[in-house]
Amino acid sequence: MLKGFSVPLTPQGKSALATLPPWHYSSDCIAIEYWTDPEAIAALLPPGLSLEQKSEGRAFFWFLDWQFTGSNDELTDPARYQYREAFALVEAVFEGTPVNYCPFIFVDNDAAIARGWAQGFPKKLASVHQTRSFSAPSPAAAPLTKGSRFGASVSAHGERLATARIQLEEKVRDPSSVFNRPTVMRRYFPQLAANQRAKPPVDELTMSLTDDLAIVDVWAASAELRIPEVQGEDMHMIAPRRVGRGYRLGMAYSVTNLRILRNYVG
Amino acid sequence: MLKGFSVPLTPQGKSALATLPPWHYSSDCIAIEYWTDPEAIAALLPPGLSLEQKSEGRAFFWFLDWQFTGSNDELTDPARYQYREAFALVEAVFEGTPVNYCPFIFVDNDAAIARGWAQGFPKKLASVHQTRSFSAPSPAAAPLTKGSRFGASVSAHGERLATARIQLEEKVRDPSSVFNRPTVMRRYFPQLAANQRAKPPVDELTMSLTDDLAIVDVWAASAELRIPEVQGEDMHMIAPRRVGRGYRLGMAYSVTNLRILRNYVG
Amino acid sequence: MLKGFSVPLTPQGKSALATLPPWHYSSDCIAIEYWTDPEAIAALLPPGLSLEQKSEGRAFFWFLDWQFTGSNDELTDPARYQYREAFALVEAVFEGTPVNYCPFIFVDNDAAIARGWAQGFPKKLASVHQTRSFSAPSPAAAPLTKGSRFGASVSAHGERLATARIQLEEKVRDPSSVFNRPTVMRRYFPQLAANQRAKPPVDELTMSLTDDLAIVDVWAASAELRIPEVQGEDMHMIAPRRVGRGYRLGMAYSVTNLRILRNYVG
Amino acid sequence: MLKGFSVPLTPQGKSALATLPPWHYSSDCIAIEYWTDPEAIAALLPPGLSLEQKSEGRAFFWFLDWQFTGSNDELTDPARYQYREAFALVEAVFEGTPVNYCPFIFVDNDAAIARGWAQGFPKKLASVHQTRSFSAPSPAAAPLTKGSRFGASVSAHGERLATARIQLEEKVRDPSSVFNRPTVMRRYFPQLAANQRAKPPVDELTMSLTDDLAIVDVWAASAELRIPEVQGEDMHMIAPRRVGRGYRLGMAYSVTNLRILRNYVG
Repeated sequence: MLKGFSVPLTPQGKSALATLPPWHYSSDCIAIEYWTDPEAIAALLPPGLSLEQKSEGRAFFWFLDWQFTGSNDELTDPARYQYREAFALVEAVFEGTPVNYCPFIFVDNDAAIARGWAQGFPKKLASVHQTRSFSAPSPAAAPLTKGSRFGASVSAHGERLATARIQLEEKVRDPSSVFNRPTVMRRYFPQLAANQRAKPPVDELTMSLTDDLAIVDVWAASAELRIPEVQGEDMHMIAPRRVGRGYRLGMAYSVTNLRILRNYVG
Repeated sequence: MLKGFSVPLTPQGKSALATLPPWHYSSDCIAIEYWTDPEAIAALLPPGLSLEQKSEGRAFFWFLDWQFTGSNDELTDPARYQYREAFALVEAVFEGTPVNYCPFIFVDNDAAIARGWAQGFPKKLASVHQTRSFSAPSPAAAPLTKGSRFGASVSAHGERLATARIQLEEKVRDPSSVFNRPTVMRRYFPQLAANQRAKPPVDELTMSLTDDLAIVDVWAASAELRIPEVQGEDMHMIAPRRVGRGYRLGMAYSVTNLRILRNYVG
Repeated sequence: MLKGFSVPLTPQGKSALATLPPWHYSSDCIAIEYWTDPEAIAALLPPGLSLEQKSEGRAFFWFLDWQFTGSNDELTDPARYQYREAFALVEAVFEGTPVNYCPFIFVDNDAAIARGWAQGFPKKLASVHQTRSFSAPSPAAAPLTKGSRFGASVSAHGERLATARIQLEEKVRDPSSVFNRPTVMRRYFPQLAANQRAKPPVDELTMSLTDDLAIVDVWAASAELRIPEVQGEDMHMIAPRRVGRGYRLGMAYSVTNLRILRNYVG
Repeated sequence: MLKGFSVPLTPQGKSALATLPPWHYSSDCIAIEYWTDPEAIAALLPPGLSLEQKSEGRAFFWFLDWQFTGSNDELTDPARYQYREAFALVEAVFEGTPVNYCPFIFVDNDAAIARGWAQGFPKKLASVHQTRSFSAPSPAAAPLTKGSRFGASVSAHGERLATARIQLEEKVRDPSSVFNRPTVMRRYFPQLAANQRAKPPVDELTMSLTDDLAIVDVWAASAELRIPEVQGEDMHMIAPRRVGRGYRLGMAYSVTNLRILRNYVG
């Protein structure tokens, strides 16, 4: 009997990139609100999602330092189970409901790629960094206080894909006023067999389900964000035309399930 | 219209980890013949494959320095399109035909993961290195001559998964006497939706198809190979009991198709 | 006029690996008390340091997640100015004063190497990780409470050099009871010119000077530590015979100066 | 007795980043001739070097895939002893002799940093890649024939510092017509002790000495080169105004000595 949630499957189940859920996550996050070209967003949306007119091209760019654990104290093996992530969320509508859609996402860990692809996040490898807040007081500590400055960046293959900086202004009392949409993704697995290539075995619209969501220590900030054009990437198509507020927060949740909104293959 | 072979799909198609085939590859390779516990091989085989009795647990461990190109001069962007790989092939039988099966494989590049998963190779990230042969004469050059020594290693998360060393002995006139079996894999993509988890959307036995295969400059060698036990990996289950010959060679092929031998999902 | 504290010196001074002090640091730390072979410690000590008899081979192994800033908001460029470190400190005596001596130290950042060599820390590159404590509650959060478990590891060239795990037991009221010795190092820069090789241009015993030292949130813990033998490293010579307590703490300081205790070159 | 050429010194001498010379090297190289602002070159030169008027700002940008060995078969440990390098050489004059001076150099290996600093090369860490030539024929092979295209790049902290592309045109019969100047460097080790900071312990003009130099398989090529401005680097000050020919070659030599041309400290 072979074990594991993802490949490689083995009798012992230790080699699998992803073990069976539940998957538990906690993170520090920097998120930047911005507006891009609505036509660029529309061109990225899969069938069933439509542009949200009143959003006027609103999007968020996120940077996250993650710690993961399954059911076996994985968090005590930080060389495997910490990772960093950066992604864009663009605003859209699904059957009348406002949602966020994730067209681009980057991580620095293969287990995060395996879990992400199983959900529908189109993850690629990159190097991601964000300023951390340390408890020992110092000009290097970046405490969670008014005026503290944080930076963040994501790079792949030696090219900078996005750079952000924020400066904390005030605590946010009600995070749900800012972060209140479900995230939908396109779960896609291609077909290489030549005679069936037009029909991918997996092509679905999915929605991320998060248990025990906790959002803590939310600060609003002034913000800068750059998404330059680099060779071999299309993310600059949704570069900022205008940047809104930045946020610095802690976020945790668990994943045990996925909602499949629509199956494009039929 | 969104483009790309794999995620992420975009209107421009540049962000996709894998573009549409053909995919062209050329490599330098070190391969080590060895024998492991036949029961450990049997325990890894998916349905339809059976242990080859006369093989007595024969396997090969490969290290490859790859260069890739598609149809757009990708080889001139080496930061994206070179990668290194290490994998085990164990001998098995499919419907009476001797084959190699790939239970463990490691690469240092996300595009190689995306293409590999689409074929059925259960790739994970690792650091892979092999001694190279340089043309400028020096004690550091490792020329392709009798007595030259080469080393190779694969490591993940800071733990050494396999280490090999070989010393060249003689040219091999007929490589087909050594490398003559097709490679079969299990193509698997999991289901996270809780109510359908028992039925993965993709679970197939596949066979790698290679066009324009070229194997050149094959040398046989004395060999050493170690596959130690490390936390979080099961590959030591097929560690060597006995090591045979080593080989150093060049190999090239193109990929445009995949044979699906059996669909386990039905 | 060329600028910079370290190479490369340029008219603009931006390329220099290290800028002029002050250098400000804040960190999260895991430290493991242990006892090793006193003879192995004695064999590592430079002239002027002697083995501390009553220490009976006492040493500490540290893991640190650092954030650095100079005078130009460097902390907002985390891809350059965060780094991770692991090192051993062994107990010794200098002119009757109990000190710690640093024989082995690893970082993942070249600016940290440049600053470290200028102080006398014999830094090499490695990958270093430690479990982090996140504020958003989750099984993945590792809060600073009794029972929380943390892991840490350091690896170089794909080989694991040290692995530690601790479980928090109680807050330490007075950190100075644990961390109260100055750190001394051997600052050494070699001579390649053949006719002068026996006389290195820099060979000194130095003492680290830290301004504005802050040690906060200190927890004592049960601890495990392994320092295995790997090829190409001598650190296993001071592997643990017995492991004492573990500690998890925050530490910050600034560096503007260095004390030169003894010049071996004369 | 502590052993090693560089830190860390140990009784066994295995931990040292650099062992005692001789050091043997073999490499594949891509070099791009170009012309930059002569004033930018002049501003980088240390005392004793002057701008070569007839050079009109001539420089070369090099990319090298290196294999290293000392006296202990180090080349069979490729995870430690292969590395990649990129550097700029600018033309200058020392006491009437035409020389090349190295103001910027990047490697991906700490032993290469240690040996380089001991010579006077101001090495920093970076990721460096160049297209390789493989023997197995394929569109991915980049053979050494007219029309083959090669690319190369160097990046640090996720920012691209230089990108080159060349297309082979013809073999070069006499490499000494192209590569015929000695390389001089500034060997510099700073002083952190505040009361002596103005007097660095090492500040010399040195000349690289290479034994058994071999230059083979030299091809001339058409070439492109970009050195963009990035945050935290000054190398764009010597960006190309005009690009000349490219070259692809093999090079090997050994290092056992260093010439000290001038001691700035006195």
